[in-house]
Amino acid sequence: MTLVRVHSFAISLDGYGTGEGQSADAHFGHAGDRLHEWMFTTRWWQPGGSGGVDDAFIRQHDPGIGAEIMGAGKFGHPGWHEDPSWRGAWGPNPPFHTPVFVLTHHTRPPIEMEGGTTFHFLDASPVEALDVAREAAQGKDIRLGGGATTIREFLAAGLVDHLHVVIVPILLGRGVRLWDGLEGLEKDYQVEATSSPSGVTHVTFTRTAS
Amino acid sequence: MTLVRVHSFAISLDGYGTGEGQSADAHFGHAGDRLHEWMFTTRWWQPGGSGGVDDAFIRQHDPGIGAEIMGAGKFGHPGWHEDPSWRGAWGPNPPFHTPVFVLTHHTRPPIEMEGGTTFHFLDASPVEALDVAREAAQGKDIRLGGGATTIREFLAAGLVDHLHVVIVPILLGRGVRLWDGLEGLEKDYQVEATSSPSGVTHVTFTRTAS
Repeated sequence: MTLVRVHSFAISLDGYGTGEGQSADAHFGHAGDRLHEWMFTTRWWQPGGSGGVDDAFIRQHDPGIGAEIMGAGKFGHPGWHEDPSWRGAWGPNPPFHTPVFVLTHHTRPPIEMEGGTTFHFLDASPVEALDVAREAAQGKDIRLGGGATTIREFLAAGLVDHLHVVIVPILLGRGVRLWDGLEGLEKDYQVEATSSPSGVTHVTFTRTAS
Repeated sequence: MTLVRVHSFAISLDGYGTGEGQSADAHFGHAGDRLHEWMFTTRWWQPGGSGGVDDAFIRQHDPGIGAEIMGAGKFGHPGWHEDPSWRGAWGPNPPFHTPVFVLTHHTRPPIEMEGGTTFHFLDASPVEALDVAREAAQGKDIRLGGGATTIREFLAAGLVDHLHVVIVPILLGRGVRLWDGLEGLEKDYQVEATSSPSGVTHVTFTRTAS
C-alpha cells in the first residue's frame, strides 16, 4: 500500500503554517521567509551548507513520491484563479517533478511545466483527490504538500501516514493554524521530536494503527 | 536586578497549557496528567528516575526563587473563591516554600501552609503584583507559576526574563492557549529548543534586550 506523506511542513511555535496577507509577492504573507530559513543553511540548498539533521529531513521530500496534492492556498495567493497567466509560485521548473493535483473550486486545464511537473486542477474531497493521485503516482507514495488547511483536513479524515512538521522558534501571531480541531491525533501515531542546532524542532508522526 | 522566571510550564503541541473542564478533581481538565507525565520519570520525582535533560530542567524550579506569582486559575478550579475551605490544589505542604501571590478579584486573608508557603491574594495588575512580590522575595527572583493566561499577560507586558516551556507531543484541541497575541515575542529573547528522549521538547526564551 502506498503512503500519504507530509515533509518539511514548517510552522511557528504558535502553530501557523503561513502568515497573514498572502499575495503574489508574499507567498507566506507577513511570515516572509522566516518559516524556511532553516532550509537555506543546508547543503541540500547550497554547496557548503550543513549536512546535519535539517539536511537529512529535507532530503526525504522527493524519494519515492509519485504525485503531490496541494491546496489552492499553496498554489497561489487568494485570487490567483482570476489570473489566467498564473502558473504557481515556483517559476518555470517547479520542485515537484511529478503530477501535482491542486484542490480548488476553480478548475482549469492542466498546465505542463518544465522538469516533469504538471499541475492538474481538481474540485474534489480529500478521499476523491487521493484516488486520482494514487492512480497517477503509479505505485509510488503521495506527498501532501500543504498548506495548513489542506493538511489539517487530510489529518482529520485519517488519511495521512507520515507527517513531518518543523517547529520554527518564532511567534507569527496570525495566519493559518495547522493544529486546530485535531484533539487526540497522537493516538494513531508514534510521535518523535528532534531539535536541531539551527533552532528548529522536527516532529514526526508515523502511523501505527491502520 | 532580580529576574522573573517561568519554569517547566507544559503545553501541548497545539499550545494548550490546560484542558477544558477544570474542577476540584481535575486541576488540568480533560488534559489529566498528560502534560506532566514527563516529570514523573525523572529522579527529581522518584528515586531511580532519569537524570537526563528533563531532570536538569525541572531542578531549576526552586533555586534562587523568593516568591511566586500565580493566576486564580492555577490556584483552583473556577468557583474556588466560593469555597471558604479551599486551600489550593497541593495539599497541606505545597511545593512552593515561599510567599505565593494569587492574582484574583476575590481576595481573602492570607493562608499560611506547612513548609514555608503562604498564599496571599491580590487584586492587582501584573506590574503591581510584581512590586509586591519583589518586596516579599527579599532580593531573590520571582517565579511566575502560571496558568497560561497569567503567563501570557506578563509576556505581553514585557515582564518575563526567562521562560521555560515544555512542549508535550499531544494535541489537546481545547483549553487555554499560551501563545495567543504574542506576535514577535522572540525578538527580545534568545530562543533555544532541546528535545528529550522522553518525547518532550524544552524551549527556553532568555531575555537579551533590557
